[in-house]
Amino acid sequence: MVAPRTAPLQANFASPLGAPRTDGLPFPVALERGSGKALHAQLSGHLRAAVLSGTLPSGSVLPGTRTLALALGVTRGVVADAYATLVADGTLEATVGRGTLVPAGAAQATQPRVPRAPTWVTPFLAPPVDGPLPPGGVVFQSGVTTARMLDLRAWRQAWSAVARLAVSGQYGDPAGERDLRVALAAFVGRQRGLPVTADAVVVTAGTLHALNLIVRALLPPGSRVLFEEPGYRAARQVLQDAGHTVVPVEVDGGGVMIGPDSPPARLAFVTPSHQFPLGGRMSLPRRLALLEWATLHDALIIEDDYDGEFRYDAPPLPTLASLDAGGGRVLYLGSLSKVLMPGVRTGFLTAPPALIPALVRARTLLDFGHPLPVQHAVTWLLTGGHIDRHIRRARRWHAQVRQALTEELAPLAPHATLGGIEAGLHVCLHLHGHLNAQEVAAQLARRDVHVTALDTYAMTQECPQALVLGFGALTVEEARRGARVIVSVLDQS
Amino acid sequence: MVAPRTAPLQANFASPLGAPRTDGLPFPVALERGSGKALHAQLSGHLRAAVLSGTLPSGSVLPGTRTLALALGVTRGVVADAYATLVADGTLEATVGRGTLVPAGAAQATQPRVPRAPTWVTPFLAPPVDGPLPPGGVVFQSGVTTARMLDLRAWRQAWSAVARLAVSGQYGDPAGERDLRVALAAFVGRQRGLPVTADAVVVTAGTLHALNLIVRALLPPGSRVLFEEPGYRAARQVLQDAGHTVVPVEVDGGGVMIGPDSPPARLAFVTPSHQFPLGGRMSLPRRLALLEWATLHDALIIEDDYDGEFRYDAPPLPTLASLDAGGGRVLYLGSLSKVLMPGVRTGFLTAPPALIPALVRARTLLDFGHPLPVQHAVTWLLTGGHIDRHIRRARRWHAQVRQALTEELAPLAPHATLGGIEAGLHVCLHLHGHLNAQEVAAQLARRDVHVTALDTYAMTQECPQALVLGFGALTVEEARRGARVIVSVLDQS
Repeated sequence: MVAPRTAPLQANFASPLGAPRTDGLPFPVALERGSGKALHAQLSGHLRAAVLSGTLPSGSVLPGTRTLALALGVTRGVVADAYATLVADGTLEATVGRGTLVPAGAAQATQPRVPRAPTWVTPFLAPPVDGPLPPGGVVFQSGVTTARMLDLRAWRQAWSAVARLAVSGQYGDPAGERDLRVALAAFVGRQRGLPVTADAVVVTAGTLHALNLIVRALLPPGSRVLFEEPGYRAARQVLQDAGHTVVPVEVDGGGVMIGPDSPPARLAFVTPSHQFPLGGRMSLPRRLALLEWATLHDALIIEDDYDGEFRYDAPPLPTLASLDAGGGRVLYLGSLSKVLMPGVRTGFLTAPPALIPALVRARTLLDFGHPLPVQHAVTWLLTGGHIDRHIRRARRWHAQVRQALTEELAPLAPHATLGGIEAGLHVCLHLHGHLNAQEVAAQLARRDVHVTALDTYAMTQECPQALVLGFGALTVEEARRGARVIVSVLDQS
Repeated sequence: MVAPRTAPLQANFASPLGAPRTDGLPFPVALERGSGKALHAQLSGHLRAAVLSGTLPSGSVLPGTRTLALALGVTRGVVADAYATLVADGTLEATVGRGTLVPAGAAQATQPRVPRAPTWVTPFLAPPVDGPLPPGGVVFQSGVTTARMLDLRAWRQAWSAVARLAVSGQYGDPAGERDLRVALAAFVGRQRGLPVTADAVVVTAGTLHALNLIVRALLPPGSRVLFEEPGYRAARQVLQDAGHTVVPVEVDGGGVMIGPDSPPARLAFVTPSHQFPLGGRMSLPRRLALLEWATLHDALIIEDDYDGEFRYDAPPLPTLASLDAGGGRVLYLGSLSKVLMPGVRTGFLTAPPALIPALVRARTLLDFGHPLPVQHAVTWLLTGGHIDRHIRRARRWHAQVRQALTEELAPLAPHATLGGIEAGLHVCLHLHGHLNAQEVAAQLARRDVHVTALDTYAMTQECPQALVLGFGALTVEEARRGARVIVSVLDQS
C-alpha cells in the first residue's frame, strides 16, 4: 500500500460572492492531490454542483483564474481548465468585459421532495404468475423442475467450453446461432417426431417470450384469439396486454375442442400434449379438427408443447405441427425450461417458412437475440446428447414421483379423482361433492402444503373444483409427505 | 459394437382392406426387433400414419388381434396394445359387433402443397438495423466493439465460476438476481456518478430491450414521444410498432433541444452523453431545460447512455437521472454491449421507485427474466473490478483509434469536418459543398470501405449530408486505412 500523497487541501472562503468578482468562492472547496482525479476535474465538479444547487446563483461572476488559483494553492492552468470545461458544457458563460459568470437558468429547478411519477402511468397490476415459494413445507408448484438429476459433470464441461470460446465484439444472428438451430431442429425431430430444418427454427428465451414474438410479429391489432379455459394465465395476459380479444374455449379431459364449428379467430393457443392445467391429451381427431378450423378460418395455431417430453404410460401423439400437411398454420413452441432448467431461459419456436422473417425482425427489435454464451453451452449439451440423456433420467425420476403421488392419493377415491396423469409434471386432483378448492388449498397451506386451486387459471367463473399439483421439483419422499397431508385434510372435510 | 439382434421382419400384405375384415393390412409393415422401440409402439405408429394418410380410410375395419398377430409373427398382446393405444387417442374406434375401425374424420384433410400463411399476416418489413457485415475491407460500423483488449483470463474465470455454481430448478428474480443489481448500482455510481440502490435497478438484455419494457409497462396506447432527429432507428421503430406517435425533434452539435416551449408528450427518448448519430453532447442548460419540460408536461425521459463510459478530452456531465432532483422523471438505460461485449446481451435500467413494479411485471410477462448463468458471470466480472479495468483499457484503445482517424481525416478540411469526437465509438463526418452522403458511401463501398450515410437514421427528409463512422470494432491500422480511402474518394469528388 502506498499512502495518499497529500492530505486534503481545504480552502474555505466565507465571503459571499457577487459582482464585482471576489477573490474566492462562497463555499468550501476540497481539492485532493494524488486522488487519481485531476485537480481541474475536481474543481469543475465542485463548481458545477454549486451552480446546480443555486449556491452560485445566476449572474454570479466567478473569481479570475489567477485570483482563485492563488486562493486554492494551485496553478492558474488548473482553474483555467476547470472554467473552460464548464463554459464548454454550458454551466458557465464566458463574457467579454464581465469575465466568467453563471448564466440564467443554470440552477436546477426546485423539485418536490417526494418523487412523483407521471399522473398518466397505469396503476400497477401484479403479474398473473405464481409468486415466490414459501420456505419449507411441500410446495406443489407448476412450471418448475428439479435439477437434482442433472449431470453436473456435463453441465460444468459445457460452461468450460464457453470459457474457451473465441470472443467477439459482434452481435450474433437474431434468429439464433446456426449451430444451435441445427441442433434444435435435430432435437425436436428425434424427441417429438417433427421434421424441420434449422431455417424454420428461431431461438427464444422460452415459451412466453416466443408468444410475445409471435404476437408482435404477426397479430394485427385487436385480433381474436381462442384460448383454453382454464389455461396458461401469463400467456393469456400477454395477449390481453397487447390489446387482443381472448375468447375462452372450454377444456375437458381430452384437451380443448376446437373444430370447424368453433368461432372464427386469427389465432388459437393450445397445449395439446398435456393441457395446462387440466392435464388432458388432445386426441387425434381433435387435433385434425383443430387444423381444419385453422384452414377454414384462415387462422394460425400456437402449439405450446411445454412438457411434451414427459410421457408415462401413453405413447406420443403426432404434434399439430407435423400433422399440418399444408405447413402454413402451426407455430410450435418448445422450451428447455423443463428438460434442462428454467434458469437458462432458452427455448425455440418452429414456424412456417413464410413467417420466419417477421419473427426474426421482432426478435431483433425486442432484444437483438439470445446471449451467445448461453447458446454455446446449450449447443454443447444438445450435440453431446446430454439433454436427451437428461430427459431419460428426468422421465424416470418424475415417473417415480408421479407413481408415489398417485399411490398416496388413491384412498381419496371416490371423493376425489386424479386427472392428467399420462404426461407432464403436474396432475389435477378433482374434488367431488361440495368441496371448494380454494378452501381446501387454504387448509393445506396451514399444514404447510402448498397447492393451487384450478380456478386460479380460469378466466370465467365456471371452473371445476380441483387442485393443481405440480410435482416437477419434488422428490418421491416430498410427494408422499405432501400427498398424505392432502388425504388427511380431505378426509376431514 | 453389438450387432442388431434381428433382421427387419417384413410383412407385406397386398390384399385391399375392406369390410368384412381381412387377415392383414393393405400396406407393408416393418417391425424391427431390438431397435429399442417396443413392437406395439412401432405397430401403432405405422397404423396411425396409415389412418392419417388415408391409406386406411374412414370405415375400414381392422383385422382381429389374433389374425394380425399371426400375420406379423408377433404375440397377440402386441397387436392388442397397439389397438388400445390408438383407440385411447381417438385414431381408431372400438365398436360392439363390428370390431375395431377407422372413425369418420380421422384422415388428415388434403392440404395445398405449397405452404400458405394466413392472408391477414402483415407483409414483412426489414428491421431498421445495420445488416450483416460484408467480409473483408474496412467496416465503419456503429454499435459494435472489439473484444481484442478483453482480459481473456478473467473472462474464462467468470465462466468457470458459472460452471461451479449450484444449479437450481427455479426461475430467478425477474428484476435480476440481487447480487447483480447491487453490483450494477455500484457500477453506475462510480462510472457515471448516479446514486441508486439495487432496488431501483432492473437487469435487461440491453438498451432496446429496456425500451420495450418501458413501452410495455408504462406507455398508454397512442402516446406521443419526442425523438431525436436523426436518431436511433431501431428504438424509433419499437415505438412506432407499438402504435405510438413519434415526434421528431431536430438535433444539432449540442444534442437535442427540448425545453418548456417544446410540444407536450408523454415521453422523450434522448442520448445526452453522445447523441446517436450526430455525436453531440447535451450541455448542462439543455439538460435542465429538458427536465423542466418533463415536469411541466408531466412526462418521462428515457436517458439512453449507450456509450457514456467512453469520453476523451471532455469530462463527464451529470446524467439526467442524477439531475432529476424530484426523482420521478428519468429512466436511465445502461448497457454492457459496448463496455464488455454485445454477445452477453446484458444491460440495465434504473427507474424511479414508483415505476419499478410495473417494469418488473413487464419483464415477467416478456421472458421471466435474464439467464442465470449470464447474470452470475457478469456479477463475477463486475465485483472483481474486471469490467472497470476493461473500460479503462478500452478507453485507451478507442482513444488511439479515434486519434488516428482524426489525424488521417484532417486533410479534408474545409471540405468536410468531423463532429461528435468528444465521446463514444463513432464520429460524424460532415460533407460540405454539393457532396451527397449516400453517393459517397456507395463510392467507398466500391473501394471496400463501408460507412453509413447520416440520413439512414433520419425520419424526415431534411438531414445534413454526413457519414457516420463507427470505429469501435477497428484497430488503429484499419482506421488509418479506411480513413485514407475516404480522403482519396472525397478528394476526387
